[in-house]
Amino acid sequence: MTDLSKLQALISTAVDELQFPEYPGQLYEPISYILSLGGKRMRPALLLMACELFGGDVNKAISPALAIEVFHNFTLMHDDIMDNAPLRRGKTTVHERWNKNVAILSGDVMLIKGYELMMQVDDSILRQVLDIFNETAVGVCEGQQLDMEFETRNVVDINEYINMIRLKTAVVLGGALKIGALIGGAPAKDADLLSQFGVQLGVAFQLQDDILDVYGDPEKFGKQVGGDIISNKKTYLLIKALELAQGEQAAELNAFLSSTHLDNTEKVAGVTRIYNNLDIRQHAETAMQGYAEKAFAALEQINLPDEHKQYLHDFADGLLVREH
Amino acid sequence: MTDLSKLQALISTAVDELQFPEYPGQLYEPISYILSLGGKRMRPALLLMACELFGGDVNKAISPALAIEVFHNFTLMHDDIMDNAPLRRGKTTVHERWNKNVAILSGDVMLIKGYELMMQVDDSILRQVLDIFNETAVGVCEGQQLDMEFETRNVVDINEYINMIRLKTAVVLGGALKIGALIGGAPAKDADLLSQFGVQLGVAFQLQDDILDVYGDPEKFGKQVGGDIISNKKTYLLIKALELAQGEQAAELNAFLSSTHLDNTEKVAGVTRIYNNLDIRQHAETAMQGYAEKAFAALEQINLPDEHKQYLHDFADGLLVREH
Repeated sequence: MTDLSKLQALISTAVDELQFPEYPGQLYEPISYILSLGGKRMRPALLLMACELFGGDVNKAISPALAIEVFHNFTLMHDDIMDNAPLRRGKTTVHERWNKNVAILSGDVMLIKGYELMMQVDDSILRQVLDIFNETAVGVCEGQQLDMEFETRNVVDINEYINMIRLKTAVVLGGALKIGALIGGAPAKDADLLSQFGVQLGVAFQLQDDILDVYGDPEKFGKQVGGDIISNKKTYLLIKALELAQGEQAAELNAFLSSTHLDNTEKVAGVTRIYNNLDIRQHAETAMQGYAEKAFAALEQINLPDEHKQYLHDFADGLLVREH
Repeated sequence: MTDLSKLQALISTAVDELQFPEYPGQLYEPISYILSLGGKRMRPALLLMACELFGGDVNKAISPALAIEVFHNFTLMHDDIMDNAPLRRGKTTVHERWNKNVAILSGDVMLIKGYELMMQVDDSILRQVLDIFNETAVGVCEGQQLDMEFETRNVVDINEYINMIRLKTAVVLGGALKIGALIGGAPAKDADLLSQFGVQLGVAFQLQDDILDVYGDPEKFGKQVGGDIISNKKTYLLIKALELAQGEQAAELNAFLSSTHLDNTEKVAGVTRIYNNLDIRQHAETAMQGYAEKAFAALEQINLPDEHKQYLHDFADGLLVREH
C-alpha cells in the first residue's frame, strides 16, 4: 500500500495541474484561487486509498478524487458566504476578495465541474458512482442546513447533533471511500462496509474535534482553545452539559451563554469548570469510542487481506489520537 | 404529434407531483415554493417534444424533462439573489421570503436533484445525456457571469452580447432538445442538428425580446415598454446604437444614459427617437432574421418526416411572431 502522505501529494500535484477556461475570468479565477489555498487533501486521498486497497490502479481514480476535492471546495466557497467568514486557511475568502455574487456563481460551476470529473470512470460503474455522489452531495447540504438552524435554536437534541455532523462531515468520507472501492473493483458489499467505516470514523473524528477544542494542547491543536465555548457553538460537549446540568449549575451555565460582558478567558474557564463537574469530557470520549468501535466493526467484516485491514486500522488510530 | 400545450400541461402535473423530503424543512420548502410559482414550462416541454419527434415514448422523458425544469429554477433562485430581485412571477423571491443563505443552499440542492432526475434514462445514453447536461449547465453559468459583467462595463461588443445571450438563454433550449432527441432514439447527427436549431432559435427569440421591449404593443407584451431603456440595460438595440451613433447623436445618447434626474417617459421617448434615427429596429430585426434562418437551415438537414419538420417550423414561427 502507498503511504497516505504520498497519495495526498499525488492529489496536490493533480490539483495544481487542473485547468479551467480563461473566459469569463471572474467565473473561473475564484475556482483556481480556492483550490490553491491548500488543505490536507484528505478526502481525495481516501478515495485513492480505497481504490488501491481493492487492487485498483490509483491513476484511474485521480479524476474522481479531484471531483471530491472540487466538490469539497465548492461547499467551502458557499459555506463561507453563509457564515460571513473573512478568512479561509488564513487567506481572504472568495466572497471578500471578489464579491458574494462571484462566490455564488463560481461555486455553482464548481459543483458542475465536480460532476464532470466524477464521470471519468468506466461505463460499468458510472451510474453507481454518480448515485453515491448525489447522495453524498445532498447529505452535505442537509448537514449545512441543520448546522445553520441549530445556531438559532435554543434546544438541540444530542441525536440531532450526531445526525448533523454525520451529514455535514462524515458522509463525504464514506462517499469518497465507497467510490474509490468501486473503482478499485470492490464487490458492492465491501464498498458498503468501507463506506460505513468512513462515516462512523468521521463522526468519531468530529467528536474528537469537539473535545480538543476544550481539552486539547493549544500548541499541538493549532486553534484557540475554547473557541467553541466563546462562540456558544452547540458542540457535543455543550449539548450534553445543557442536558445534564440541573438547578444552580444549569442557571450558571445559561448565564455564561447569555453573558455579553464577560472576558473570554473567564468564560472559557467557567464553562470548562461546569463541564468538569458534569464529567462531560468522559461522556464525549465514550461517545467517540462508540463510533470508533462501530467503524472497526464494519472494517472487520470487509473481505480484505489482513495487512490491508491493518493499514485502515492504523489510519483510523492515527486520525483519532491527533495531537492532544 | 402532441400539441405543445398538452406537453406543457403534462409537465405541470409532473412538477406538482414532485416530492421532496420534509426534513430539513428550510432546505426543501423553498424548492417546492419556487416550482409552484408556475411558468410556461417551455424548456421541459421542448424536451418531450424532441423525444416524440423521433418516435420515442414521452413518458420515458418526463424525469429528464423535470431535471431541465428543476435546473432552470435553480438558476432563477440564484440569479434572484445576485440581481437583488424582490419578486419572481409576481411572488416574493426565495431569498426575500426566507433569506439569502436559504436561497443559496436550496439552490445548491436543486442542482443536485437536477442530476438525480436527469440520470433517469437508459444506461445506453446515460453518459451522453449527462455530458450535454454538464455542458448546458456550465454555459448558463458563464452566460450569467457575462451578463453581470456587462452591467458594469462601459463598452460591450455586439458579438460578446450575442455570445452572452446564447449562453444564458439559448443553450438550455438546445440542450433540452438534444437530450429529448437522444431519449427518443435520434441518431447523434440529428440530435446535434436539433440542438443547433434550438440554440439559433433561442438567440433569435432573445433578440425579439430586446425589440419588443421598445417596439412591442404594451398590452400584448405584458411588460412596461422601455423597461430596458429606463434601466440602461445593454441590449442589442443599445449596443448597436452606441456603435453607430456619431458626434452630437452619440453625445445625446450618452447624456440619456448618464442622466439621473430625467423623467422615465422622456428618457424612453428620447432614446427611442435616437434608435429610430439610426434604424436600430431594422438592424435588430435583420439580426434576428439571420438567426431564425440559421435555425431553419439546421432544421432542413434533420432526417425527419416532412410533417414533423413542419411542426417544428410552425413552433418556431409561433415563437417569433409573439404579440407585437
